[in-house]
Amino acid sequence: MLPMSSQQSELMRLLLPVADGIKRTRETIAAQLSGTSPAVRDMVEHIGRFQGKQLRAALVLLCGDATSNSTDEHSSIAAVVEMIHLATLVHDDVLDGAEVRRRVACVNQRWDNQTAVLLGDFLYARAFALSTDLSSRMCSRVLAEATRRICVGEIQQAASRYDFEMTQERYEWIAGAKTATLYAAACELGARYPSGHDEQGARMRQFGWELGLAFQIIDDCLDLTATQQEVGKSVGTDVEDGKVTLPVLWAYARADESTRAAIRDIYTRTEAGDRVGDLRRRCRVLEGVEYARHRADELIHSALDRVRELPPSAARASLENIAGFVLERSW
Amino acid sequence: MLPMSSQQSELMRLLLPVADGIKRTRETIAAQLSGTSPAVRDMVEHIGRFQGKQLRAALVLLCGDATSNSTDEHSSIAAVVEMIHLATLVHDDVLDGAEVRRRVACVNQRWDNQTAVLLGDFLYARAFALSTDLSSRMCSRVLAEATRRICVGEIQQAASRYDFEMTQERYEWIAGAKTATLYAAACELGARYPSGHDEQGARMRQFGWELGLAFQIIDDCLDLTATQQEVGKSVGTDVEDGKVTLPVLWAYARADESTRAAIRDIYTRTEAGDRVGDLRRRCRVLEGVEYARHRADELIHSALDRVRELPPSAARASLENIAGFVLERSW
Repeated sequence: MLPMSSQQSELMRLLLPVADGIKRTRETIAAQLSGTSPAVRDMVEHIGRFQGKQLRAALVLLCGDATSNSTDEHSSIAAVVEMIHLATLVHDDVLDGAEVRRRVACVNQRWDNQTAVLLGDFLYARAFALSTDLSSRMCSRVLAEATRRICVGEIQQAASRYDFEMTQERYEWIAGAKTATLYAAACELGARYPSGHDEQGARMRQFGWELGLAFQIIDDCLDLTATQQEVGKSVGTDVEDGKVTLPVLWAYARADESTRAAIRDIYTRTEAGDRVGDLRRRCRVLEGVEYARHRADELIHSALDRVRELPPSAARASLENIAGFVLERSW
Repeated sequence: MLPMSSQQSELMRLLLPVADGIKRTRETIAAQLSGTSPAVRDMVEHIGRFQGKQLRAALVLLCGDATSNSTDEHSSIAAVVEMIHLATLVHDDVLDGAEVRRRVACVNQRWDNQTAVLLGDFLYARAFALSTDLSSRMCSRVLAEATRRICVGEIQQAASRYDFEMTQERYEWIAGAKTATLYAAACELGARYPSGHDEQGARMRQFGWELGLAFQIIDDCLDLTATQQEVGKSVGTDVEDGKVTLPVLWAYARADESTRAAIRDIYTRTEAGDRVGDLRRRCRVLEGVEYARHRADELIHSALDRVRELPPSAARASLENIAGFVLERSW
């Protein structure tokens, strides 16, 4: 794997075809979040620093370009998508107790849970308010439904903690609902907004879904294999939070009874110790990681097949490279 | 003051003119929240029991009738408004650490903060998704903006904890933003949806704002004077949470330095003791309550003047009686 800084500059290069659009998107987000009270501004400035890759915004713009469907409103749609993503991140920090995200102290560390809830609600509200200003209602509709589905995914995930017997299908449904939904919505809106283009929208939605699900699977692998230094956020938090991810499910399904008991114990014992290290050393979880990476690879290949049905263009090439990039990333 | 059960049956009587609409609203909410996964259903069933007065839904319907502006969609608008209200209640429970709301254990007592955040997000998302299905975008627009303003109010309130020097104007801005906003939006939508009727919409919006602000002021008074038995939720939580409400602001502004020090100490001392009792006994806070009730009275009279510009009808009479009722309530 490339070191993080080269990876980031590589990603920057992939997003070049839509650099102007991303600049407009950033300006729109900044304008949406400024001009409010000092208390709000103080919070918003803080999250500004962990806006990160803006991959979802780039997908709106690239899918617009790659399908010759770009409009003046695409950068606003991208801003709405990113603000919803930010809201989910902020609320996730309440959920996970994660200690570090992108090397900036989480909102709920610098402030408290109450503030994180309010700031997330504010971001959702601002995003929906912006979407209702657009000329077509498609953006509000697709993203309201996407947000609902993300919540259902998170709720199901919370209800499935310590469920070591979960099927892969259910794991993928949950991982997809909470993560791939917004990728799918971003790609669909890029290809379909403001109206029509149903078939093209459905294809790009599927592309986004596969890309996002692969992204989440790789994320789940990195939580078991990477260092905090590499990914820029806490690792091992899934195990800490009782989330049974694909690598662990795979290992559990293939384990004998004593190894299963060991896995359950490592997840649930009071003294944390090195839970991830113990899973790796004693429970064949790295073989599960290999299996999960293979599954992510399958999804990416299916996503690539879809995008290759589009006519060649710089934007299409970027989408293809982003898909490849999701597999290779170490952050 | 009437005992609670007579008050409730009195309120039921006031809502009779829109009983059918409220029934349709309840059915719409039930339909919106059912049909999802067992994990979601389990949560939703729980909150079903603290839906309460549905006063905001009734205001949509009554304002529609009183302005001869009712449509088939008004009960759906009422459902969106109630779902947003429910979402704010659920997230408020994370915020306040309130222990009892309407005598049903709070979501965050039966589950945890994470679940409350997710359920609130789900309710917001469902509400916005429903609003995007309506024929006019007015509902989405007004309620997205209202939700944003509610969040800003809550954020400002959090930033103003233990601020004993707050002006009354700022107190009213915050109390209005967090509470009156949704009343104002409900009344405006009732009178304006789906389009036009700007003047009538603005008048009923103002009616809702004054009604909602009076409601919040009375709420703040009850937190200092009522028993948990009377209001059906924890009392004294404002003092516990560092919220300086109008009665306390009034008393503080008129107190000598030693009483001011006492007020600050009662709010901030480590041993809680009987904070509310001490404020009442030692700091003239009951005179502040009297002043605040007088201010609520002023607001209600202004609200009544507005509604009396409408032609007489059963709906108008209900709106007038509800306004009077807000002053008299003990819950």
